[in-house]
Amino acid sequence: MATPTTALEHPEAGAIELIDVLSALSDPSRLAIVRQLADGSGEGMACQAVGGDLAKSTRSHHLKTLREAGVIRSVPRGRERFLSLRREDLDGRFPGLLDAVLTDGKP
Amino acid sequence: MATPTTALEHPEAGAIELIDVLSALSDPSRLAIVRQLADGSGEGMACQAVGGDLAKSTRSHHLKTLREAGVIRSVPRGRERFLSLRREDLDGRFPGLLDAVLTDGKP
Repeated sequence: MATPTTALEHPEAGAIELIDVLSALSDPSRLAIVRQLADGSGEGMACQAVGGDLAKSTRSHHLKTLREAGVIRSVPRGRERFLSLRREDLDGRFPGLLDAVLTDGKP
Repeated sequence: MATPTTALEHPEAGAIELIDVLSALSDPSRLAIVRQLADGSGEGMACQAVGGDLAKSTRSHHLKTLREAGVIRSVPRGRERFLSLRREDLDGRFPGLLDAVLTDGKP
């Protein structure tokens, strides 16, 4: 397993695929993580702060799916990873998609 | 298997769930069917006219997934089924989502 300070692979913005993003978002736990990141500051959140009560291995799996789909960025900072939503990249590739997904359930 | 003239179940517009819609759309064949229906007239398309080269059983499976998620409507007409996109219902539930998905890849 990668140590916290290893840089992980992320798709380039132009290589993010709609099918992968839709697939990554079509899980309640992953959608909850995305909403958590969207509600947070642009600074990102520590890996441990997201995903609520999920088991560590489950959270890791979901974060990997989101990262590989291009939905989130995971950047090492010291001994931790910081996660952020790739909002600009997603808005650039699929205008309106993220807003539509994040708006659901809000007045 | 249901005969062509049997009415199939569809979720009410208010019961359409985001996760189900995202999941239904996160497959290349199903996304292609949705685009085909979006490009067609509001009249709908005969079941046999969608899905290109898909095997009949594969097409049936995909159409069932789309119907149960609330993405398409499948209505018997004579000995055929007519399919249409539930655009108004989806736009009402998740404003902007369908447009964002359908716009991808178009200039």
